[in-house]
Amino acid sequence: MSAAPVIAPTTGLDALLDDVRAEAPHIEVLRPSAETAAFAFDAGTAPRQVSDGDGPAVAFPATPAEVQQLVRLAARHGVSIVPRGAGTGLSGGATASADQLVVSTARLDRIVEVSPADEVAVVEPGVLNAALNERLDPLGLFYAPDPASWRISTIGGNIATNAGGLRCAKYGVTRESVLALDVVLADGSLVSVGHRSIKGVTGLDLVSLFVGSEGVLGIVVGATVRIRPLPVARRTLSAFFATTAAGADAIGAITASRVRPSVIEFLDQPTLEGIDAAQGSGLRDRGAALLLIELDGFGIDEQTAELSAALTAAGAHVRVESDADAETLWELRRSGRRFDDDHWFAGGDVAVPKSRIAEIFAGFPAIADRHGVSVSAVAHAGDGNLHPVISLRIPPGADPALPPAAVHDAADDVVRAALAVGGTVSGEHGIGTVKRDLAAEELAVRVREAQLALKNALDPAGLFNPGKAL
Amino acid sequence: MSAAPVIAPTTGLDALLDDVRAEAPHIEVLRPSAETAAFAFDAGTAPRQVSDGDGPAVAFPATPAEVQQLVRLAARHGVSIVPRGAGTGLSGGATASADQLVVSTARLDRIVEVSPADEVAVVEPGVLNAALNERLDPLGLFYAPDPASWRISTIGGNIATNAGGLRCAKYGVTRESVLALDVVLADGSLVSVGHRSIKGVTGLDLVSLFVGSEGVLGIVVGATVRIRPLPVARRTLSAFFATTAAGADAIGAITASRVRPSVIEFLDQPTLEGIDAAQGSGLRDRGAALLLIELDGFGIDEQTAELSAALTAAGAHVRVESDADAETLWELRRSGRRFDDDHWFAGGDVAVPKSRIAEIFAGFPAIADRHGVSVSAVAHAGDGNLHPVISLRIPPGADPALPPAAVHDAADDVVRAALAVGGTVSGEHGIGTVKRDLAAEELAVRVREAQLALKNALDPAGLFNPGKAL
Repeated sequence: MSAAPVIAPTTGLDALLDDVRAEAPHIEVLRPSAETAAFAFDAGTAPRQVSDGDGPAVAFPATPAEVQQLVRLAARHGVSIVPRGAGTGLSGGATASADQLVVSTARLDRIVEVSPADEVAVVEPGVLNAALNERLDPLGLFYAPDPASWRISTIGGNIATNAGGLRCAKYGVTRESVLALDVVLADGSLVSVGHRSIKGVTGLDLVSLFVGSEGVLGIVVGATVRIRPLPVARRTLSAFFATTAAGADAIGAITASRVRPSVIEFLDQPTLEGIDAAQGSGLRDRGAALLLIELDGFGIDEQTAELSAALTAAGAHVRVESDADAETLWELRRSGRRFDDDHWFAGGDVAVPKSRIAEIFAGFPAIADRHGVSVSAVAHAGDGNLHPVISLRIPPGADPALPPAAVHDAADDVVRAALAVGGTVSGEHGIGTVKRDLAAEELAVRVREAQLALKNALDPAGLFNPGKAL
Repeated sequence: MSAAPVIAPTTGLDALLDDVRAEAPHIEVLRPSAETAAFAFDAGTAPRQVSDGDGPAVAFPATPAEVQQLVRLAARHGVSIVPRGAGTGLSGGATASADQLVVSTARLDRIVEVSPADEVAVVEPGVLNAALNERLDPLGLFYAPDPASWRISTIGGNIATNAGGLRCAKYGVTRESVLALDVVLADGSLVSVGHRSIKGVTGLDLVSLFVGSEGVLGIVVGATVRIRPLPVARRTLSAFFATTAAGADAIGAITASRVRPSVIEFLDQPTLEGIDAAQGSGLRDRGAALLLIELDGFGIDEQTAELSAALTAAGAHVRVESDADAETLWELRRSGRRFDDDHWFAGGDVAVPKSRIAEIFAGFPAIADRHGVSVSAVAHAGDGNLHPVISLRIPPGADPALPPAAVHDAADDVVRAALAVGGTVSGEHGIGTVKRDLAAEELAVRVREAQLALKNALDPAGLFNPGKAL
């Protein structure tokens, strides 16, 4: 590296990449090309066939210092940066255009430390959620946040989206498991915020601000996360109901009990039928709706007795599942609904106050009728988070890549139904690019102004992930 | 109220108070006087005798709209505002000078709603923590954050300081129990942020940013907090040890078990002796150090068995306490150490990684010897939070209001010992005015710059609580 800063002859991505090659040749970089086209999309925005146009430039720094170098060079050339984990997001938060630099965390994948005594792990952002748990399991420990993508998504991506999952009602969302962060800011500085203890109040809580900020405030290059002892026992209960409405109503019976399950998944009638059709299972023979529940911790028999009684009183047929049957049921829940090529689909991710879940399900038939589509949902019932699915059979000759407006209109109607009962447009997937219009319906103008003011305070040049989240 | 805005003839507090009387006569206001002198202090900064000088002006708005009016009028006159709950803070966060306007939340004291079905309560900021729990208890519910001041501190003050307490290791600090906030910003606008569901990710997390911000970003006028079912069982275990060191080491045995108590309080030898001297109890007869533990939830017998075995193996004499004995022990813990008039005292509030707690206690004798003082501590051991006490007998003829430098130097040495093992200068009391210098030792310059940039983004004129927290 030369002593005096290099003055770039031109601005823009080409000049940036020239400088990276000259000043930081050890950083692996892909120039914009067909090879990088996949980086233009995430798991929620990828078209059925990736276009053969050029994607963005992609850098793979291997140390925090390399991230700092990239940020400084990008700032020099006015090239904006898109931080990216595994690209499993569903809202377009990690998508990039051909004039941007993607900073991938794929090489920042070290588990730096596991401390059972402090109940923390220190990881780089590119560590897969599953990889951390594989490391922890033999120690009798686990990392609680469990987005459905946990096998393939990174801790850094989970932090960027404040990822949720199934166990949140009991163990909290990602924010509750992040104690400290190392972050590269827009001026290239590296800061450490937060504490290695559960408590700590020194000024504004920058950790919580970075968690869920979808890469618009900085690039997380290290995280100290909270880990916990594995529960002494786990048990799966199934509660089948005669109707979707009866099952949705019974969520209140769980709340009214003193048992707080680690997981409460609610599957409505169309979901059960869809799983049976795709997997050859016989769930619908057992009922029209299912509350699939995991209990954990001490007193598992007491918990089972109290919850079974409450659910039975609410009209359920309750069964304590064997380990093998439990595994089958959870596998059906996870990978059951297949998105067949002969249907158009639109997904969703709303959250509502728990007491309103039943109301949302009750409104699906009217939305379906209005738009001539099918509407169903799976809910993380413990925290009010629903994942609706709108579907419509593709008629012969129609373009599978061009769903009619009715599909998306119905999805928007579900979101508006959630807003009408005090809910939110995104429970756990984030805003990204996909939900900016919907977020604008939820958030007051003054709130969006405040969010933008905070963004500008930390990234005045708009270097990080412009056009996302806010 | 006149149609055209009144143009104030002068700026400053007098002109502001004139305008309040003219434009918002329904708001109760105390002019600066000896009567308001107590508002110059909080529970941590009050002198032994309050001076008979004038305190600040104090307003008692009864609605969010009245808070908005006050903020707009104060902004018009360039008078800074100090938001204040019950004034029980210990770090000077709510102290005010004679040229400032205190906005008290004392009249904003309504419990707006309790929803067992949504597991939330909606409260105004002036509601006492204890008042909320009194309302919840008959419903079989509770609000978890339990700072030692819970009988006399407000939910708003708890939010401002992100108050901790005894149960945080299991139930989280205040931040984990706050789902949504209504906040008056520096331009007088009223915004609602957050969600009534546990999940929700729409842009930056303003709720977490306001929690713990010590009144420098806005005035909380409403809060939606998470409530929980009361545990089905509670049990108190005492574990006495032959030495402070043995007791501190045994904290690791709890971590290594699979039991997560709701409360783990560690009392060292000087603390036990101080309690016995003040209360006439006989704790020291049972051992030289005490881990006082509360278990709760299902499987209380299983939990008791596993934890008792772990502690016994660590050298403890363990006893399951009767309800009556448990109550006595907790009362001794809460109000035991008396701050006698014949000693100078300095308190503290550090947090360290759990595995380093024993090291901190082991360092006390050296600090005590170096400064010629006594050093002891009680620790919320589950979350690494210690409350050290430095004391020194006041010699005849010395001024009780003027402790020698040794007292505060020793307190600072304890804080530096915590920083040296990766701890923080404030576990749960906040920075206020008292800990700004220490916070500067902990936080990097760039972190403080970032905090100030965020403050300026939301309060560019520095209207709210200048000189505090940051």
